[in-house]
Amino acid sequence: MNKKALYNLSYGVFMLASKADGKENGCITNTCMQVANNPTRVAISVLNTNYTCDLIKKSGLFTLSLLDEACTFETIRHFGFQSGRDVMKFGCTELKDKNGIPYLGWQACAMLSCHVVSSQDLGSHTMFIAEVDDAKVLSTNAPLTYADYQNRLKPKREEKKEEPERKIVGWRCKICRYYYEGSELPEDYSCPLCGHGPEDFEPVYES
Amino acid sequence: MNKKALYNLSYGVFMLASKADGKENGCITNTCMQVANNPTRVAISVLNTNYTCDLIKKSGLFTLSLLDEACTFETIRHFGFQSGRDVMKFGCTELKDKNGIPYLGWQACAMLSCHVVSSQDLGSHTMFIAEVDDAKVLSTNAPLTYADYQNRLKPKREEKKEEPERKIVGWRCKICRYYYEGSELPEDYSCPLCGHGPEDFEPVYES
Repeated sequence: MNKKALYNLSYGVFMLASKADGKENGCITNTCMQVANNPTRVAISVLNTNYTCDLIKKSGLFTLSLLDEACTFETIRHFGFQSGRDVMKFGCTELKDKNGIPYLGWQACAMLSCHVVSSQDLGSHTMFIAEVDDAKVLSTNAPLTYADYQNRLKPKREEKKEEPERKIVGWRCKICRYYYEGSELPEDYSCPLCGHGPEDFEPVYES
Repeated sequence: MNKKALYNLSYGVFMLASKADGKENGCITNTCMQVANNPTRVAISVLNTNYTCDLIKKSGLFTLSLLDEACTFETIRHFGFQSGRDVMKFGCTELKDKNGIPYLGWQACAMLSCHVVSSQDLGSHTMFIAEVDDAKVLSTNAPLTYADYQNRLKPKREEKKEEPERKIVGWRCKICRYYYEGSELPEDYSCPLCGHGPEDFEPVYES
């Protein structure tokens, strides 16, 4: 089985936000598809280690901001490369849906406001099927695709700097925080938790 | 709610095939996403009126051919605009996966061979979650996206010809065969069954 075949599936890029018990958070995902009409339903899949996943499980509510071609890497980094357990990602000026869940009014061409009708734990991820209660078109920009993000937006992997004085003991996935023990990360490695490749791992040095 | 917001979701285009009780069929779909790792699982959503959907329900097996930029409208028409209840869509020369289910060796950049692990009836569609048993990269062409299909591949809506001698009594959806009764199809109409717009309806004349 050649898992690279799966790289040929096409996706968008989204900021997924939720709120529960007075706490709100958002993360970056690439999985959402419409799965039924009348009522309009979508399916999303979210890493179980994501804080946003916990919030959706609690409240059953989320918004999805469909990022567009004007989106910058800074936005992806802000929502995608740090955990809501450590930082507050939202201020107090964002747009909110009728449930008080934030969404992006900029760098996004549309938003969906949804409530969960069923969920299924798939081990690494939970899949939610949700009914769309509200939907807005926010701009006429083209949607950002995951291929655009990979080819145009994402910084190229940094050249390894010579740092002879510090010994690498492992590698941490910047997406899901999975830890790989060992000084050399194989070039064709993919994270067993979230599926991302070596370019999304950062070295962990001997302390 | 502005349902046009949902047009900003990004999709690929696929030939979905299955086989049961010695009968095989394939159709065109645009919904597949990877939903979990270890094991690798994908979700697809298929119209309940599609013959391929019946076959998947019976056998629990399918292949997905990920169409690429070399795909022609003829291929889309062959698999997508006629029903396997009326015509045989496959010959005897196709490539087959280990379950004997055909897939495309041309106009496709990759294939997935899957077995269903759970399904959920959502009214208009059934959503299947399936484990990927085999996956092949078939070409280095870029995947065909649904946006490419809409903008580049799909023929523009034909101008209505003046046919004063024949009275239009209804409109039939070319995708799912839904019948709309009435001489005028509203310009912003979308099929209640499959969600497609007026450009995918053909007139039905008084007999």
